Amino acid sequence: MTDTLKLVSCNKSFGGWHKRYAHHSSTLNCTMHFSIYLPPSANPEARVPVLYWLSGLTCTDENFMQKAGAQRVAAELGIALVAPDTSPRGEGVPGDPAGGWDFGLGAGFYLNATQAPWSAHYRTHDYVVHELPALIEAVFPVDGRRAVSGHSMGGHGALVCALRNPGRYRSVSAFAPIANPVNCPWGEKAFSGYLGPERSRWREWDASLLLASAEERLPLLVDQGDADDFLATQLHPEALRQAADKAGYPLTLRLQPGYDHSYYFIASFIEEHLRFHATALQD
Amino acid sequence: MTDTLKLVSCNKSFGGWHKRYAHHSSTLNCTMHFSIYLPPSANPEARVPVLYWLSGLTCTDENFMQKAGAQRVAAELGIALVAPDTSPRGEGVPGDPAGGWDFGLGAGFYLNATQAPWSAHYRTHDYVVHELPALIEAVFPVDGRRAVSGHSMGGHGALVCALRNPGRYRSVSAFAPIANPVNCPWGEKAFSGYLGPERSRWREWDASLLLASAEERLPLLVDQGDADDFLATQLHPEALRQAADKAGYPLTLRLQPGYDHSYYFIASFIEEHLRFHATALQD
Repeated sequence: MTDTLKLVSCNKSFGGWHKRYAHHSSTLNCTMHFSIYLPPSANPEARVPVLYWLSGLTCTDENFMQKAGAQRVAAELGIALVAPDTSPRGEGVPGDPAGGWDFGLGAGFYLNATQAPWSAHYRTHDYVVHELPALIEAVFPVDGRRAVSGHSMGGHGALVCALRNPGRYRSVSAFAPIANPVNCPWGEKAFSGYLGPERSRWREWDASLLLASAEERLPLLVDQGDADDFLATQLHPEALRQAADKAGYPLTLRLQPGYDHSYYFIASFIEEHLRFHATALQD
Repeated sequence: MTDTLKLVSCNKSFGGWHKRYAHHSSTLNCTMHFSIYLPPSANPEARVPVLYWLSGLTCTDENFMQKAGAQRVAAELGIALVAPDTSPRGEGVPGDPAGGWDFGLGAGFYLNATQAPWSAHYRTHDYVVHELPALIEAVFPVDGRRAVSGHSMGGHGALVCALRNPGRYRSVSAFAPIANPVNCPWGEKAFSGYLGPERSRWREWDASLLLASAEERLPLLVDQGDADDFLATQLHPEALRQAADKAGYPLTLRLQPGYDHSYYFIASFIEEHLRFHATALQD
């Protein structure tokens, strides 16, 4: 499988290695980039667990690695970090016909599109849950212990990936997730496009609705800034809270005073998320 | 002085505040942006010292604040961080006539140009040493304790600002500085343009030459990656080492195995630099 990967760049970081790769994704029918951070302790005789990080609207695989400051703690804890891109890319991959930044390129919403022309490429759920981990676990000194986290659209992605796939992850967390996408403008635009107008088909991609009937109980941590410009219109953490209360799901939801939607918010709390995941990953 | 500042953005970060401002610089004859991080402990009754960070070629005031991960430690140590832009900007400010990224816009080299047309705007030494600190100390809850650090072109800038201005800084450090610019292509291009062809006038802007006759002895820490693509042709830390040895200057120069010229390198060692500066600032 190694020959399917093309190394794009490589930087030493906190004694470990940050690497960027290109590869052909059969799920997405295009060339994709991802970034991986391997802590100094990772080697074939001492494989490490992986935290998958799903970024938000307009991001690529690079934002988290450059801005979150996660490598220091990942190096200390012996956790690999993997950041995929946020949508299929490249020639032949359609973007938003309206030219928006909240649909299409950079806005795959971590779901499997059912509507043409999106369904030919926009299957980012299967990519981040199945194809990418299979590749990562075949090539790098990691094992099958997985956790998932993300921000905004990627927070929605992390929650949905965990809730739809019992047994695949040991823990899940999110920063300012789009927690109830069937009830917000970003979600309604994306789900209408990718899944079609029939709202009943949207339910299986909504974290708050999925949580209500979840089979598995995972450690679940959500941080939300109370000065986030998108909180009132797009994010709806209260829907997640209500679903968790109703289902008896062990959700830790923290409202962080003064924090906004930016990577400055993520950087401020990423250490706590990594330590939260480390506890579950190292059990 | 507050009314000369226009707040561009503001983000809570590690309990403190990251803020970006625009202001008119009389030294540079243009509108400039800078970023400041104020740790949570900073207030008018408990003023904090400032570390000035000078970035490298092509950067703005934003790169360091987004990528270095310095705020966590600055918050803990009670140090403000100030990052100016790397050149004058805007309408009427000339860039490299050849379209290069290593001269002109984003490449002010922290010196005072003497040659037309550069001398009308490119006086970034006086800006970062005098005008900006005067503004910062008038407006924000900081005091006159200053340290300076930087990367690459900004490492050169940090060294030169400290060496040319005894009494202004308590400590100086650099990551992969252009340590002997009179003897490398980046320096020769910049100094020829800004200072003219007469090489004798370049000496007063070269850290290795200035160090040889420095009056003041400051704590001085330099980190250099040994996998830095620019090490052999542009950076010449050995010239700094030789000058320090000859002058008996207390230089700590560390060659960091495997590290390159990127912000991944800076992020890996910024904590050590901040703790180094904190010792000098808190004396």
